[in-house]
This record gives sequence, C-alpha cells and structure tokens, in this order.
Amino acid sequence: MSSNSDIDALIDLMARLPGLGPRSARRAVLHLIRKRTLLLGPLADAMRLVADTARECLNCGNVGTADICDICASHKRGTGELCVVEDVADLWAMERAGVFKGRYHVLGGTLSALDAVGPEDLRIPRLIDRVETEAVSEVILALNATVDGLTTAHYIADRLQGRVRLTSLAQGVPIGGELDYLDDGTISAALRARKEI
Amino acid sequence: MSSNSDIDALIDLMARLPGLGPRSARRAVLHLIRKRTLLLGPLADAMRLVADTARECLNCGNVGTADICDICASHKRGTGELCVVEDVADLWAMERAGVFKGRYHVLGGTLSALDAVGPEDLRIPRLIDRVETEAVSEVILALNATVDGLTTAHYIADRLQGRVRLTSLAQGVPIGGELDYLDDGTISAALRARKEI
Repeated sequence: MSSNSDIDALIDLMARLPGLGPRSARRAVLHLIRKRTLLLGPLADAMRLVADTARECLNCGNVGTADICDICASHKRGTGELCVVEDVADLWAMERAGVFKGRYHVLGGTLSALDAVGPEDLRIPRLIDRVETEAVSEVILALNATVDGLTTAHYIADRLQGRVRLTSLAQGVPIGGELDYLDDGTISAALRARKEI
Repeated sequence: MSSNSDIDALIDLMARLPGLGPRSARRAVLHLIRKRTLLLGPLADAMRLVADTARECLNCGNVGTADICDICASHKRGTGELCVVEDVADLWAMERAGVFKGRYHVLGGTLSALDAVGPEDLRIPRLIDRVETEAVSEVILALNATVDGLTTAHYIADRLQGRVRLTSLAQGVPIGGELDYLDDGTISAALRARKEI
C-alpha cells in the first residue's frame, strides 16, 4: 500500500510477473519512480509497442512483431535445416548460442497424456505440412530431455520417418560440467556416445 | 536475444529492474507477451500513467500523483503527529502496518559523513520549518536502527529539543534491521511502545 491508488495499481500488476512478489514489486516500482525519465517512461513505451505489435509467427510459432517472424523472413536462414523446439524460450536459447543458421519450428509444448495434450493441440500438423511443402532437408529435434520431451520426439520421428533426415541434439557431459555432479543417466548416455579423439 | 529488436529492447529495460537479471527479464517478457491483453497492455498503461503523473509531495517528500500527496491532503490525518522516516519505502511499510493515523516527513536518506551527506542534502530544514509552522504536537522518529539512522535521529532530536514532544520507535526494531523488511506486527508493537527521548 503506497497511499496512492495509481501507484498501488502498478505495484499489483508488477507483482504478477514471474519472479516478482509483492515486496519486490514495491521495490521495483519505487526504483522506477526514482528513474522516471531514464527507465519508467521508456519501459512504458516499449511495453505499449510490444503489446500492440507482438504476435506469433504464422509459419513457425516464434514471437515477433510481424505475421512472419524475422527468422522465417530472412533468406539467409533458408538452409533447409529445421530445428524443432518446445517453446519460444528454447528458440531464444538456441539463438543465443548463435551456431544454428537454419529455421525453427516451435511446438508450443509437449504431448502429455496426463494433461490431455494431443498432437492437434501442438503445432505438429503444421510441422508435417512444412516438411511436405518447404525445401526441408533435415529436421533437428531439440526437445527438452524430459519424459514428455522424449515422448514427443518419438511421436514426431514416427510421423516423419522416411520423408526427411531426422536428427536430435547430442546427449553427454555439458561444457564445464563435473562428472561428480552429473546424474547417472547423463554419464551412461555420454559413455554410450563416446567418440574417438 | 529474441531475434526481434523491439522485444530485445523491452528485455534490456526489464533487466534493469532491481531483482531481475537478463534471464528473469526474458522469462518475464515471454510471460507478458503470452498475457498480452490481460497483463502487458494494462501494465504499459499503468506505467505511462505513473511516469506522467508521479512526483514528490512538496510538503513531506512522499511520492504521489499530485503536488500534495493524499496523506498530507487528508483532513483525517491532521492529528498533530509527524512521523519522520528515511525513505518512501519506510513510509509505505508504516502505512501497511495501518496503525499510525498522523502525517509523515520523508528525509530522503540519512546523514553520512562518509558519503558527505549533510542536513541540507536531506529534507531536515523543511522538517524544522514544518514543526514551526504546522500544528505539530509530536515528532516520532521512525528511522532505521542502523548507525546512520541513529546519528540522524540524534541530530534531529538536538535541533528540535524543547520545541515539540519527541519520541522514537522502541521495542521490536531489531538492531541493524530496516523498516521495509519488518512484519506489520513488529511495526505496530514498536509504534505503541514509543518512548520519550
């Protein structure tokens, strides 16, 4: 409670962001008010702009400010490689790594019998459609290494088998990782996939 | 990096909030884009409104959306009691406790020899002015129980000695603790048990 209803309304909205609670929302709002010109104004403008223009790419499901996202629209990305990810956050993580030069397909989740999520609830039909109509030479399944992620990868591999080259991200020891802190499954996978030096 | 410059700009601004880093800013922005209508739009509007209207109360230093804040403008709060706090966050903490019915005076910091903060850098001259011109019957020093807070309380007590009844928050404030992080019950207890200096 700040004794002012407009400021209280802003605090309530900020407290609904992931990672912020009521206390940190109050702290953030006080910080914003102190930096009115440098931070609060520009932030309000940036939010308004994104609120008005942000949408899902009709092609791949990435978020952007046009009907077709920057990656799908770029001629440089037309390598024929299609990287399938669960979520936009995963696409952003791949882009930060900066090593993949093809295009993406965002499923929007994973298959889940428990939550009654079937292929039609995800962007799987659109993926099969893209493989048939676009010049796709390879589909890279970059799903999370969870039970649901693996189930979804198996389902997609079944559907696309024989039509296109199918690959998945390699499993093994993460860069900078210490064996002592790794789980047994990862060590087994890394040992099975060992390679000549 | 989200592959879109407008969204990247929003992430960069969000990452400058206290309590958010680049990773949590990305998470927050994705959440905002998913809840475009329910959260992002209203948040942009609330920020714009506060950015345009927020200012410091000319009387007490509280933040509000008018030249004189709601507390100073309220007739109900004219009890003659004046609560001196370091910061707006402390005023908010006092208001959340809900037990104080008088008005506030926000110093805007504490005296600090190390940081070369003198009485003229704070709202101390204005406090003495208010004690002389307003019908103030009691000044409650609700400064943080830190070295700088105590120094400042001593300085103010020296300046106002003999002119007005002086009290300070007592039991309940832990040594080294800050008002903004205290629970409401402790703040209430401390206010009820205030004592003469």
